[in-house]
Amino acid sequence: MYLAGQVARTAAIYCVTEIVVFLDSAPNNASTRAQNFLHTVLQYAETPQYLRKHLYPRTPMLRLAGLLNPLALPSHLARSDYCRYRDGVYTRGRHVDVGLDRLAEVDKPAPSGTRVTVDLSPSGDEIYHKAPGKYLFGKVVPFNSPDKYWGYRVRTAKSLSDVFRDAPVQYDLVVGTSERGTPLGSNGLPGLPSHKHALIVFGGVNGLEFAANNDEALKELEDVGDLFDFYVNTCTEQGSRTIRTEEALLISLAALQPYLRAAANAT
Amino acid sequence: MYLAGQVARTAAIYCVTEIVVFLDSAPNNASTRAQNFLHTVLQYAETPQYLRKHLYPRTPMLRLAGLLNPLALPSHLARSDYCRYRDGVYTRGRHVDVGLDRLAEVDKPAPSGTRVTVDLSPSGDEIYHKAPGKYLFGKVVPFNSPDKYWGYRVRTAKSLSDVFRDAPVQYDLVVGTSERGTPLGSNGLPGLPSHKHALIVFGGVNGLEFAANNDEALKELEDVGDLFDFYVNTCTEQGSRTIRTEEALLISLAALQPYLRAAANAT
Repeated sequence: MYLAGQVARTAAIYCVTEIVVFLDSAPNNASTRAQNFLHTVLQYAETPQYLRKHLYPRTPMLRLAGLLNPLALPSHLARSDYCRYRDGVYTRGRHVDVGLDRLAEVDKPAPSGTRVTVDLSPSGDEIYHKAPGKYLFGKVVPFNSPDKYWGYRVRTAKSLSDVFRDAPVQYDLVVGTSERGTPLGSNGLPGLPSHKHALIVFGGVNGLEFAANNDEALKELEDVGDLFDFYVNTCTEQGSRTIRTEEALLISLAALQPYLRAAANAT
Repeated sequence: MYLAGQVARTAAIYCVTEIVVFLDSAPNNASTRAQNFLHTVLQYAETPQYLRKHLYPRTPMLRLAGLLNPLALPSHLARSDYCRYRDGVYTRGRHVDVGLDRLAEVDKPAPSGTRVTVDLSPSGDEIYHKAPGKYLFGKVVPFNSPDKYWGYRVRTAKSLSDVFRDAPVQYDLVVGTSERGTPLGSNGLPGLPSHKHALIVFGGVNGLEFAANNDEALKELEDVGDLFDFYVNTCTEQGSRTIRTEEALLISLAALQPYLRAAANAT
């Protein structure tokens, strides 16, 4: 629960839009259950508080979820907050609970329980708290279409290669992180191309080599580093014998972010 | 406890040798107690497991210390590990418990209960596990004299200015971190001088401005940024409305480390 919470916090801080939880060896009961747990907790943490009662009826898996540090995402709005966009859940027909006193009536229907992002002020100049009527008016928009970072989606993959095979977008920059990678010094990532969809890959306790070795589709691969545009070590000369996964995530994104952002802005 | 544990982990990962816990407003019962708690837990976490029974008789304050993630410092040695240096505690006269089957007899006496770092193989070529005799022979050396990172010391300060006034060394590089600092981009810290004793300063929940405003000795200071050689923001454009203190520490050290290391190596 703690690990999952820290992964979620790191994703939120660094405006991550997709988290992929992959298995690094042949699936078994325990690993599939752990993957499922991580998937559920990450998605739960990303869900605005007011939608959790709809989407997550009490389950033993989320019994300790109250201990999670809040993500405080832009989509996590209180009743009195104003934001042109709000996440909601369909209650019936075209009615969506967006965490306000009134339901929103949106432009397209969907099965109740469906989560959706709603633009409540298509003209952009209306404060909906003051709008008249029994319902608010809203327009369904794609997730992450708001003009600022909105949150992340989570998917699972059965192996390292499935991370790429099932991708919803084409990753145009892939960075692998490993103790065996090239130390990331003060020169950053030389020759880093401009990109739109960067993917950063972390191994489990046994590292990325282990994941590649257990992957049928990567049998021909001689060096796991060949999978990546950059293969870097972000925690060199550490004073502790161990780096925990949640620490490696935060460290790596903190170390890589200035370079990634500079290259992304160069487009 | 959790915050303290993460501060300790961050210090260990980044080879920090001194942690200063300062108060950011006039001391009161609650703040002094909190400071004392943080001091104790940080020092406890840094102590090799085999010395804890000597140095920390059971106290309510450390009741939850079992939950701390281990620091796995070089000084945290198991009985069977070999390292030329070992931390120990004087038991009587010149006898020191260094976590082995036999006590070490060292070159100078000290009151029992005193913690010390011992060089057990001054010639450097003797594996003490095989040494004959009722006692091992050892030589007391200064803390952090081993040829690798060894651990940190903790001290407290009553105000921000006391951090500098009571310093055991002259800090020759001081970096302040704040939301109001200059964003740390991919250009790093331009003009960073070579240095031996870098100090990185973090504010509490109210920031460093608050600490400076509450500091009698800093009354004349117009801008808290003037206290520092660099005043930087290491977490720009974050996707979460909040950054927790323990996250800010890890992020800042991860972001600053490549530059600090490059400049330190330039000496």
